[in-house]
Amino acid sequence: MWGSPVASQAMGESEPQSQAKAPSQRVRVRRAAGRGRYGKSDVVGILDAGLIAHVGVLTPEGPLVLPMAFGHDGDCLFLHGAVANHLLGTGDGQEVCVTVTCLDGLVMARTPFHNSMNYRSVVVRGRARRIDEEERKLYALRLVTDHVVENWDAGRPPTRSELRKTLVLEVPLAEASAKVRSGDPSDEPEDMAGPWWAGVVPVTTHFEPPTSSADLNGDADPPASVAALSGLSSDERLKSGDG
Amino acid sequence: MWGSPVASQAMGESEPQSQAKAPSQRVRVRRAAGRGRYGKSDVVGILDAGLIAHVGVLTPEGPLVLPMAFGHDGDCLFLHGAVANHLLGTGDGQEVCVTVTCLDGLVMARTPFHNSMNYRSVVVRGRARRIDEEERKLYALRLVTDHVVENWDAGRPPTRSELRKTLVLEVPLAEASAKVRSGDPSDEPEDMAGPWWAGVVPVTTHFEPPTSSADLNGDADPPASVAALSGLSSDERLKSGDG
Repeated sequence: MWGSPVASQAMGESEPQSQAKAPSQRVRVRRAAGRGRYGKSDVVGILDAGLIAHVGVLTPEGPLVLPMAFGHDGDCLFLHGAVANHLLGTGDGQEVCVTVTCLDGLVMARTPFHNSMNYRSVVVRGRARRIDEEERKLYALRLVTDHVVENWDAGRPPTRSELRKTLVLEVPLAEASAKVRSGDPSDEPEDMAGPWWAGVVPVTTHFEPPTSSADLNGDADPPASVAALSGLSSDERLKSGDG
Repeated sequence: MWGSPVASQAMGESEPQSQAKAPSQRVRVRRAAGRGRYGKSDVVGILDAGLIAHVGVLTPEGPLVLPMAFGHDGDCLFLHGAVANHLLGTGDGQEVCVTVTCLDGLVMARTPFHNSMNYRSVVVRGRARRIDEEERKLYALRLVTDHVVENWDAGRPPTRSELRKTLVLEVPLAEASAKVRSGDPSDEPEDMAGPWWAGVVPVTTHFEPPTSSADLNGDADPPASVAALSGLSSDERLKSGDG
């Protein structure tokens, strides 16, 4: 499904395919290499659009992949602590792979052999470092908090004790690659005249109107940035907000 | 974000929290253990709802996580070939971790320290086996193809040669666990009287109306199952279809 040999088209919102080279062999796109993109703007654009990351580490019992909240500043990717702690134990410096995927469509060909999906994904490989400096930890937590929608400044800042309890990891974006598939299915020439339909079912991720906590006393409203999300897709939020 | 110590509530569409035990130590939920669910229906319900899997393997250059299409029959999870080939090289029998996540909401607390996400996720750990038997390969490919929406029978069946070229892997569901977070944020008692808003922004994944391929000659319509997806969320499709 995911790997038919179709040349990719530029996505509506991304730049023309970057001519940049893979920053390392281990992040070079090998299957359907024409879909690989290595420009910083390619990688950053997909990280901005993505809502969650899937983080892989090696444990004594084999590889483990867990979903995590994340943020980035263009140079580093930041992962929030509680799960990071679980993932990485007490040590830092462990190799991780962080993958962020935006699913854009079901690609339905004339034969299921050529079915595929339209998607944008980023793979980052590198060593995770535990952030110990309080200022950098605050910097990273703000980026993770504000990644989907800005809300850090609308809440109570964390206390020193909360900050100490929070483990935050950074992973350099130096070894990152993007992979994009878009557009129609690619069928066999001899199937073109057949009776079968072919096309794409677009898939979008939307934010619904916010619901207030049952324990909310008083009349606090959602922050303007949060209220503004309502009805937007994850891509549309990038165009409408200032975040 | 992802790991605040909130007791989970039963999700709208899942069964009450299962009392089943973890099938193995390595899939036992450790962070926020109250959110762990080990019943087969818990695991299968989330696999049914999910659209893509993130598959982790160990490569000579460290862990690697890639997005993949998948299907399952309740006993085994099936992964489609082209990417599987890339992941697993020529051999089979390698340990993998397959994680499927449905993101349900942004959980925004009175302080970002207690921000979280509502989600349903499944983690499957086990050895991937390459399927060599032609009949089982067809069985698995049909399950992968029909996982999101039934469309196998609407297209041209694969030829023998296409089938030979397709690598399909199976991973037993024997070692799987689910983790679910739902409901409101959980704030500190001393923050309750504060001026801050708290609540949830629901996140849904929708199917848009299908678009026909530019190279579609003739007047073929999308299969009824595909047309029926239009406007549904990924969860709603489970209630409306027979798939």
